[in-house]
Amino acid sequence: MDLPSKYLNEAVEQFASLPSIGKRSALRLVLELLKRSPEEIDRFSNAIKAIKENINYCDNCGNISDEKVCTICANPSREHRTICIVEDIRDIMAIEATGSYKGVYHVLGGVISPMDGQGPEDLNINSLLEKVKRNEVDEIIFALSSTMEGDTTNFYIYKKLSPITITITTLSRGVSIGTELHYADELTLGRSILQRLPFESTFK
Amino acid sequence: MDLPSKYLNEAVEQFASLPSIGKRSALRLVLELLKRSPEEIDRFSNAIKAIKENINYCDNCGNISDEKVCTICANPSREHRTICIVEDIRDIMAIEATGSYKGVYHVLGGVISPMDGQGPEDLNINSLLEKVKRNEVDEIIFALSSTMEGDTTNFYIYKKLSPITITITTLSRGVSIGTELHYADELTLGRSILQRLPFESTFK
Repeated sequence: MDLPSKYLNEAVEQFASLPSIGKRSALRLVLELLKRSPEEIDRFSNAIKAIKENINYCDNCGNISDEKVCTICANPSREHRTICIVEDIRDIMAIEATGSYKGVYHVLGGVISPMDGQGPEDLNINSLLEKVKRNEVDEIIFALSSTMEGDTTNFYIYKKLSPITITITTLSRGVSIGTELHYADELTLGRSILQRLPFESTFK
Repeated sequence: MDLPSKYLNEAVEQFASLPSIGKRSALRLVLELLKRSPEEIDRFSNAIKAIKENINYCDNCGNISDEKVCTICANPSREHRTICIVEDIRDIMAIEATGSYKGVYHVLGGVISPMDGQGPEDLNINSLLEKVKRNEVDEIIFALSSTMEGDTTNFYIYKKLSPITITITTLSRGVSIGTELHYADELTLGRSILQRLPFESTFK
Protein backbone atom coordinates (compact mmCIF):
# COMPACT_ATOMS: atom_id res chain seq x y z
CA MET A 1 0.00 0.00 0.00
CA ASP A 2 1.59 3.23 -1.15
CA LEU A 3 0.66 6.02 1.26
CA PRO A 4 1.38 9.68 0.43
CA SER A 5 2.69 10.59 3.92
CA LYS A 6 5.30 8.95 6.13
CA TYR A 7 3.40 10.00 9.28
CA LEU A 8 0.22 8.43 7.95
CA ASN A 9 2.22 5.34 7.07
CA GLU A 10 3.75 5.06 10.56
CA ALA A 11 0.33 5.35 12.27
CA VAL A 12 -1.13 2.76 9.91
CA GLU A 13 1.80 0.41 10.60
CA GLN A 14 1.23 0.77 14.35
CA PHE A 15 -2.48 -0.02 14.16
CA ALA A 16 -1.81 -2.87 11.74
CA SER A 17 0.60 -4.39 14.29
CA LEU A 18 -2.39 -5.15 16.53
CA PRO A 19 -4.07 -8.56 16.25
CA SER A 20 -6.81 -8.92 13.62
CA ILE A 21 -6.30 -5.41 12.21
CA GLY A 22 -5.12 -5.47 8.60
CA LYS A 23 -3.56 -2.59 6.67
CA ARG A 24 -6.86 -1.52 5.14
CA SER A 25 -8.69 -1.46 8.46
CA ALA A 26 -5.74 0.36 10.03
CA LEU A 27 -5.92 3.05 7.33
CA ARG A 28 -9.66 3.41 7.96
CA LEU A 29 -9.03 3.89 11.69
CA VAL A 30 -6.26 6.45 11.17
CA LEU A 31 -8.36 8.44 8.66
CA GLU A 32 -11.16 8.45 11.25
CA LEU A 33 -8.70 9.77 13.88
CA LEU A 34 -7.50 12.46 11.46
CA LYS A 35 -11.01 13.92 11.41
CA ARG A 36 -10.89 14.53 15.17
CA SER A 37 -9.74 17.63 17.01
CA PRO A 38 -6.15 17.91 18.32
CA GLU A 39 -7.56 17.56 21.88
CA GLU A 40 -9.29 14.29 21.00
CA ILE A 41 -6.14 12.95 19.34
CA ASP A 42 -4.14 13.90 22.44
CA ARG A 43 -6.60 12.10 24.65
CA PHE A 44 -6.27 8.95 22.54
CA SER A 45 -2.50 9.13 22.47
CA ASN A 46 -2.25 9.85 26.21
CA ALA A 47 -4.61 7.00 27.09
CA ILE A 48 -2.20 4.61 25.38
CA LYS A 49 0.86 6.11 27.07
CA ALA A 50 -0.91 5.91 30.44
CA ILE A 51 -1.53 2.18 30.37
CA LYS A 52 2.16 1.35 30.64
CA GLU A 53 2.94 4.13 33.11
CA ASN A 54 0.00 3.73 35.46
CA ILE A 55 -1.54 0.28 35.34
CA ASN A 56 -0.46 -1.91 38.24
CA TYR A 57 -0.80 -5.58 38.82
CA CYS A 58 -2.22 -7.00 42.06
CA ASP A 59 0.69 -8.10 44.29
CA ASN A 60 -1.26 -11.16 45.23
CA CYS A 61 -2.89 -12.58 42.09
CA GLY A 62 -1.42 -10.62 39.14
CA ASN A 63 -4.80 -9.19 38.09
CA ILE A 64 -4.77 -5.67 36.64
CA SER A 65 -5.48 -3.13 39.37
CA ASP A 66 -4.93 0.53 40.17
CA GLU A 67 -4.22 -0.41 43.82
CA LYS A 68 -1.51 -2.67 45.24
CA VAL A 69 -4.09 -5.39 45.87
CA CYS A 70 -7.09 -5.93 43.54
CA THR A 71 -10.69 -5.67 44.76
CA ILE A 72 -11.21 -9.44 44.59
CA CYS A 73 -8.14 -10.27 46.71
CA ALA A 74 -9.05 -7.44 49.11
CA ASN A 75 -12.59 -8.77 49.59
CA PRO A 76 -12.76 -10.65 52.96
CA SER A 77 -15.95 -12.51 51.94
CA ARG A 78 -14.17 -14.42 49.13
CA GLU A 79 -12.77 -17.90 49.80
CA HIS A 80 -9.05 -17.14 49.72
CA ARG A 81 -7.92 -20.78 49.92
CA THR A 82 -9.59 -21.64 46.58
CA ILE A 83 -7.61 -20.32 43.62
CA CYS A 84 -8.77 -20.34 40.01
CA ILE A 85 -5.89 -20.19 37.49
CA VAL A 86 -6.70 -18.04 34.45
CA GLU A 87 -4.84 -16.69 31.46
CA ASP A 88 -5.85 -13.04 31.64
CA ILE A 89 -8.28 -10.50 33.01
CA ARG A 90 -10.95 -11.32 30.39
CA ASP A 91 -11.32 -14.79 31.88
CA ILE A 92 -11.83 -13.27 35.34
CA MET A 93 -14.52 -11.00 33.89
CA ALA A 94 -16.24 -13.96 32.22
CA ILE A 95 -16.23 -16.07 35.41
CA GLU A 96 -17.26 -13.13 37.63
CA ALA A 97 -20.19 -12.49 35.25
CA THR A 98 -21.56 -15.98 36.05
CA GLY A 99 -21.84 -15.12 39.77
CA SER A 100 -21.02 -18.83 40.43
CA TYR A 101 -17.55 -18.47 41.95
CA LYS A 102 -16.63 -17.27 45.43
CA GLY A 103 -12.91 -18.07 45.44
CA VAL A 104 -10.04 -15.91 44.24
CA TYR A 105 -7.92 -15.95 41.07
CA HIS A 106 -4.35 -16.26 39.93
CA VAL A 107 -3.54 -14.62 36.58
CA LEU A 108 -0.75 -16.30 34.58
CA GLY A 109 -0.57 -13.59 31.94
CA GLY A 110 -0.62 -16.12 29.10
CA VAL A 111 0.02 -19.80 28.45
CA ILE A 112 3.16 -21.76 27.59
CA SER A 113 3.53 -21.38 23.85
CA PRO A 114 6.94 -22.27 22.38
CA MET A 115 5.71 -21.16 18.93
CA ASP A 116 5.33 -17.60 20.29
CA GLY A 117 8.56 -17.88 22.29
CA GLN A 118 6.63 -17.90 25.57
CA GLY A 119 8.02 -20.29 28.18
CA PRO A 120 7.04 -20.99 31.83
CA GLU A 121 9.53 -18.36 33.01
CA ASP A 122 7.53 -15.65 31.18
CA LEU A 123 4.39 -16.48 33.15
CA ASN A 124 3.33 -15.66 36.69
CA ILE A 125 3.78 -19.26 37.87
CA ASN A 126 6.39 -19.04 40.63
CA SER A 127 4.29 -16.85 42.91
CA LEU A 128 1.51 -19.45 42.65
CA LEU A 129 3.91 -22.22 43.69
CA GLU A 130 5.07 -20.04 46.60
CA LYS A 131 1.48 -19.57 47.79
CA VAL A 132 0.94 -23.34 47.71
CA LYS A 133 4.23 -24.01 49.53
CA ARG A 134 3.29 -21.51 52.25
CA ASN A 135 0.18 -23.71 52.75
CA GLU A 136 -2.21 -20.90 51.82
CA VAL A 137 -4.20 -22.99 49.32
CA ASP A 138 -6.76 -25.80 49.58
CA GLU A 139 -7.84 -26.09 45.96
CA ILE A 140 -6.44 -25.09 42.57
CA ILE A 141 -8.94 -24.87 39.67
CA PHE A 142 -7.48 -24.91 36.16
CA ALA A 143 -9.53 -22.58 33.93
CA LEU A 144 -7.22 -22.13 30.95
CA SER A 145 -8.34 -22.35 27.32
CA SER A 146 -8.93 -25.88 26.07
CA THR A 147 -6.09 -25.71 23.54
CA MET A 148 -2.80 -27.54 23.24
CA GLU A 149 -1.04 -24.58 24.87
CA GLY A 150 -3.58 -24.42 27.70
CA ASP A 151 -3.29 -28.18 28.31
CA THR A 152 0.52 -27.97 28.28
CA THR A 153 0.42 -25.17 30.85
CA ASN A 154 -2.03 -27.08 33.05
CA PHE A 155 0.25 -30.11 32.94
CA TYR A 156 3.38 -28.10 33.69
CA ILE A 157 1.80 -26.55 36.80
CA TYR A 158 0.27 -29.91 37.80
CA LYS A 159 3.73 -31.52 37.71
CA LYS A 160 5.24 -28.68 39.74
CA LEU A 161 2.51 -29.11 42.36
CA SER A 162 2.54 -32.92 42.43
CA PRO A 163 4.77 -33.39 45.50
CA ILE A 164 2.25 -31.39 47.55
CA THR A 165 -1.13 -32.73 48.68
CA ILE A 166 -3.74 -30.32 47.43
CA THR A 167 -7.04 -30.63 45.52
CA ILE A 168 -6.54 -29.89 41.81
CA THR A 169 -9.64 -29.56 39.63
CA THR A 170 -10.50 -28.28 36.19
CA LEU A 171 -13.60 -26.85 34.51
CA SER A 172 -16.07 -29.52 33.39
CA ARG A 173 -16.26 -29.93 29.63
CA GLY A 174 -19.40 -31.02 27.84
CA VAL A 175 -22.25 -30.09 25.58
CA SER A 176 -23.23 -26.42 25.99
CA ILE A 177 -26.53 -25.73 27.71
CA GLY A 178 -29.15 -24.67 25.17
CA THR A 179 -27.31 -26.25 22.22
CA GLU A 180 -28.93 -28.77 19.89
CA LEU A 181 -26.99 -31.99 20.33
CA HIS A 182 -26.09 -32.50 16.67
CA TYR A 183 -24.26 -29.16 16.64
CA ALA A 184 -21.82 -30.25 19.36
CA ASP A 185 -18.34 -31.15 18.10
CA GLU A 186 -17.30 -34.81 18.23
CA LEU A 187 -14.59 -34.40 20.85
CA THR A 188 -16.84 -32.54 23.28
CA LEU A 189 -19.78 -34.90 22.72
CA GLY A 190 -17.54 -37.95 23.12
CA ARG A 191 -16.09 -36.66 26.36
CA SER A 192 -19.51 -35.69 27.70
CA ILE A 193 -20.67 -39.33 27.26
CA LEU A 194 -17.55 -40.77 28.93
CA GLN A 195 -17.85 -38.27 31.81
CA ARG A 196 -21.64 -38.60 32.16
CA LEU A 197 -23.14 -37.33 35.42
CA PRO A 198 -25.84 -38.68 37.76
CA PHE A 199 -29.13 -37.25 36.45
CA GLU A 200 -29.95 -35.97 39.92
CA SER A 201 -26.99 -33.56 39.72
CA THR A 202 -28.87 -31.54 37.06
CA PHE A 203 -31.60 -30.66 39.61
CA LYS A 204 -29.20 -28.47 41.62
CA MET B 1 -18.06 -3.99 31.31
CA ASP B 2 -16.54 -3.55 34.74
CA LEU B 3 -12.79 -3.05 34.42
CA PRO B 4 -10.47 -3.12 37.44
CA SER B 5 -8.43 -0.07 36.42
CA LYS B 6 -9.45 3.43 35.35
CA TYR B 7 -6.43 3.68 33.02
CA LEU B 8 -7.35 0.40 31.37
CA ASN B 9 -10.92 1.65 31.10
CA GLU B 10 -9.89 4.93 29.45
CA ALA B 11 -7.71 3.17 26.87
CA VAL B 12 -10.52 0.70 26.11
CA GLU B 13 -13.01 3.59 25.74
CA GLN B 14 -10.69 5.32 23.29
CA PHE B 15 -10.21 2.25 21.10
CA ALA B 16 -13.94 1.48 21.27
CA SER B 17 -14.65 5.01 19.96
CA LEU B 18 -13.21 3.95 16.59
CA PRO B 19 -15.56 2.58 13.94
CA SER B 20 -16.32 -1.16 14.04
CA ILE B 21 -14.32 -1.74 17.25
CA GLY B 22 -16.54 -2.92 20.09
CA LYS B 23 -15.67 -2.91 23.80
CA ARG B 24 -14.53 -6.53 23.77
CA SER B 25 -12.25 -6.06 20.77
CA ALA B 26 -10.93 -2.84 22.32
CA LEU B 27 -10.03 -4.69 25.53
CA ARG B 28 -8.25 -7.35 23.48
CA LEU B 29 -6.20 -4.67 21.69
CA VAL B 30 -5.28 -2.86 24.92
CA LEU B 31 -4.25 -6.12 26.63
CA GLU B 32 -2.07 -6.85 23.61
CA LEU B 33 -0.47 -3.38 23.92
CA LEU B 34 0.10 -3.96 27.64
CA LYS B 35 2.37 -6.90 26.80
CA ARG B 36 4.70 -4.62 24.84
CA SER B 37 7.76 -2.75 26.05
CA PRO B 38 7.48 0.90 27.17
CA GLU B 39 9.42 1.88 24.00
CA GLU B 40 6.90 0.12 21.77
CA ILE B 41 3.99 1.75 23.60
CA ASP B 42 5.67 5.15 23.19
CA ARG B 43 6.11 4.53 19.50
CA PHE B 44 2.39 3.71 19.14
CA SER B 45 1.31 6.70 21.17
CA ASN B 46 3.68 9.07 19.33
CA ALA B 47 2.56 7.82 15.92
CA ILE B 48 -0.98 8.88 16.81
CA LYS B 49 0.10 12.26 18.14
CA ALA B 50 2.17 12.84 15.00
CA ILE B 51 -0.69 12.48 12.53
CA LYS B 52 -2.37 15.65 13.72
CA GLU B 53 0.85 17.58 14.18
CA ASN B 54 2.62 16.62 10.97
CA ILE B 55 0.27 15.48 8.26
CA ASN B 56 -0.41 18.18 5.67
CA TYR B 57 -3.00 18.41 2.95
CA CYS B 58 -2.08 19.28 -0.64
CA ASP B 59 -2.79 22.98 -1.21
CA ASN B 60 -4.21 22.13 -4.58
CA CYS B 61 -6.37 19.02 -4.24
CA GLY B 62 -6.73 18.35 -0.50
CA ASN B 63 -5.01 14.96 -0.68
CA ILE B 64 -2.90 13.95 2.31
CA SER B 65 0.73 14.86 1.71
CA ASP B 66 3.93 15.60 3.64
CA GLU B 67 4.75 18.37 1.13
CA LYS B 68 2.75 21.48 0.28
CA VAL B 69 1.69 19.94 -3.03
CA CYS B 70 1.06 16.19 -3.39
CA THR B 71 3.01 13.98 -5.83
CA ILE B 72 0.04 13.65 -8.20
CA CYS B 73 -0.54 17.43 -8.48
CA ALA B 74 3.21 18.00 -8.80
CA ASN B 75 3.49 15.52 -11.68
CA PRO B 76 3.68 17.45 -15.00
CA SER B 77 2.67 14.39 -17.06
CA ARG B 78 -0.83 14.24 -15.47
CA GLU B 79 -3.75 15.94 -17.24
CA HIS B 80 -4.34 18.83 -14.87
CA ARG B 81 -7.55 20.03 -16.55
CA THR B 82 -9.37 16.76 -15.79
CA ILE B 83 -10.39 16.51 -12.14
CA CYS B 84 -11.83 13.45 -10.44
CA ILE B 85 -13.86 14.27 -7.29
CA VAL B 86 -13.37 11.70 -4.51
CA GLU B 87 -14.34 11.36 -0.88
CA ASP B 88 -10.99 10.46 0.63
CA ILE B 89 -7.49 9.20 0.01
CA ARG B 90 -8.62 5.56 -0.12
CA ASP B 91 -10.57 6.31 -3.31
CA ILE B 92 -7.45 7.87 -4.87
CA MET B 93 -5.48 4.74 -3.96
CA ALA B 94 -8.18 2.52 -5.53
CA ILE B 95 -8.30 4.53 -8.77
CA GLU B 96 -4.50 4.85 -8.99
CA ALA B 97 -4.25 1.06 -8.60
CA THR B 98 -6.24 0.61 -11.84
CA GLY B 99 -3.63 2.56 -13.84
CA SER B 100 -6.54 3.80 -16.01
CA TYR B 101 -6.60 7.45 -15.00
CA LYS B 102 -4.19 10.18 -16.04
CA GLY B 103 -6.02 13.24 -14.65
CA VAL B 104 -5.76 14.71 -11.15
CA TYR B 105 -8.02 14.55 -8.10
CA HIS B 106 -9.96 16.76 -5.76
CA VAL B 107 -10.54 15.33 -2.27
CA LEU B 108 -13.77 16.49 -0.58
CA GLY B 109 -12.94 14.92 2.81
CA GLY B 110 -16.38 13.33 3.06
CA VAL B 111 -19.88 13.64 1.64
CA ILE B 112 -22.88 15.76 2.62
CA SER B 113 -24.56 13.82 5.42
CA PRO B 114 -27.07 15.75 7.54
CA MET B 115 -27.48 12.66 9.78
CA ASP B 116 -23.82 12.99 10.81
CA GLY B 117 -24.08 16.79 11.01
CA GLN B 118 -21.88 17.17 7.92
CA GLY B 119 -22.94 19.95 5.55
CA PRO B 120 -21.39 21.36 2.33
CA GLU B 121 -19.45 23.94 4.38
CA ASP B 122 -17.56 21.10 6.13
CA LEU B 123 -16.26 19.79 2.81
CA ASN B 124 -13.50 20.98 0.52
CA ILE B 125 -15.98 22.23 -2.13
CA ASN B 126 -15.24 25.97 -2.44
CA SER B 127 -11.68 25.52 -3.66
CA LEU B 128 -13.04 23.24 -6.41
CA LEU B 129 -15.53 25.93 -7.51
CA GLU B 130 -12.69 28.48 -7.48
CA LYS B 131 -10.58 26.29 -9.78
CA VAL B 132 -13.49 25.98 -12.20
CA LYS B 133 -14.16 29.74 -12.10
CA ARG B 134 -10.50 30.46 -12.83
CA ASN B 135 -11.05 28.37 -16.01
CA GLU B 136 -8.50 25.75 -14.96
CA VAL B 137 -10.81 22.78 -15.59
CA ASP B 138 -12.14 21.02 -18.72
CA GLU B 139 -13.85 18.02 -17.13
CA ILE B 140 -15.13 17.09 -13.68
CA ILE B 141 -15.60 13.35 -12.98
CA PHE B 142 -17.83 12.44 -10.03
CA ALA B 143 -16.42 9.34 -8.30
CA LEU B 144 -18.24 9.42 -4.96
CA SER B 145 -19.88 6.39 -3.35
CA SER B 146 -23.16 5.35 -4.92
CA THR B 147 -25.17 6.14 -1.78
CA MET B 148 -27.86 8.71 -1.01
CA GLU B 149 -25.20 10.91 0.59
CA GLY B 150 -22.88 10.54 -2.40
CA ASP B 151 -25.70 11.34 -4.84
CA THR B 152 -26.75 14.38 -2.78
CA THR B 153 -23.18 15.66 -2.83
CA ASN B 154 -22.86 15.10 -6.59
CA PHE B 155 -26.09 17.02 -7.15
CA TYR B 156 -25.07 19.89 -4.86
CA ILE B 157 -21.78 20.37 -6.72
CA TYR B 158 -23.52 19.90 -10.09
CA LYS B 159 -25.95 22.72 -9.25
CA LYS B 160 -23.14 25.00 -8.11
CA LEU B 161 -21.31 24.36 -11.41
CA SER B 162 -24.38 24.63 -13.66
CA PRO B 163 -23.90 28.28 -14.76
CA ILE B 164 -20.49 27.34 -16.13
CA THR B 165 -19.97 25.35 -19.35
CA ILE B 166 -17.82 22.38 -18.47
CA THR B 167 -17.96 18.63 -19.09
CA ILE B 168 -19.34 16.81 -16.06
CA THR B 169 -19.19 13.00 -16.05
CA THR B 170 -19.61 10.21 -13.54
CA LEU B 171 -18.29 6.66 -13.23
CA SER B 172 -20.22 4.15 -15.32
CA ARG B 173 -22.37 1.79 -13.27
CA GLY B 174 -23.12 -1.73 -14.38
CA VAL B 175 -22.63 -5.41 -13.81
CA SER B 176 -19.16 -6.15 -12.42
CA ILE B 177 -16.71 -7.79 -14.76
CA GLY B 178 -16.30 -11.46 -13.86
CA THR B 179 -19.60 -11.66 -11.99
CA GLU B 180 -22.29 -14.22 -12.80
CA LEU B 181 -25.29 -12.25 -14.00
CA HIS B 182 -27.81 -13.66 -11.53
CA TYR B 183 -25.70 -12.37 -8.61
CA ALA B 184 -26.00 -8.72 -9.75
CA ASP B 185 -28.45 -6.61 -7.73
CA GLU B 186 -31.68 -5.52 -9.43
CA LEU B 187 -30.88 -1.81 -9.50
CA THR B 188 -27.47 -2.29 -11.08
CA LEU B 189 -28.72 -4.86 -13.58
CA GLY B 190 -31.70 -2.67 -14.53
CA ARG B 191 -29.50 0.34 -15.08
CA SER B 192 -26.98 -1.68 -17.09
CA ILE B 193 -29.77 -2.66 -19.54
CA LEU B 194 -31.07 0.90 -19.88
CA GLN B 195 -27.54 2.24 -20.37
CA ARG B 196 -26.46 -0.56 -22.70
CA LEU B 197 -23.34 0.05 -24.78
CA PRO B 198 -22.39 -0.64 -28.40
CA PHE B 199 -20.87 -4.13 -28.40
CA GLU B 200 -17.83 -2.83 -30.27
CA SER B 201 -16.93 -0.66 -27.26
CA THR B 202 -16.01 -3.83 -25.32
CA PHE B 203 -13.18 -4.57 -27.80
CA LYS B 204 -11.21 -1.55 -26.61
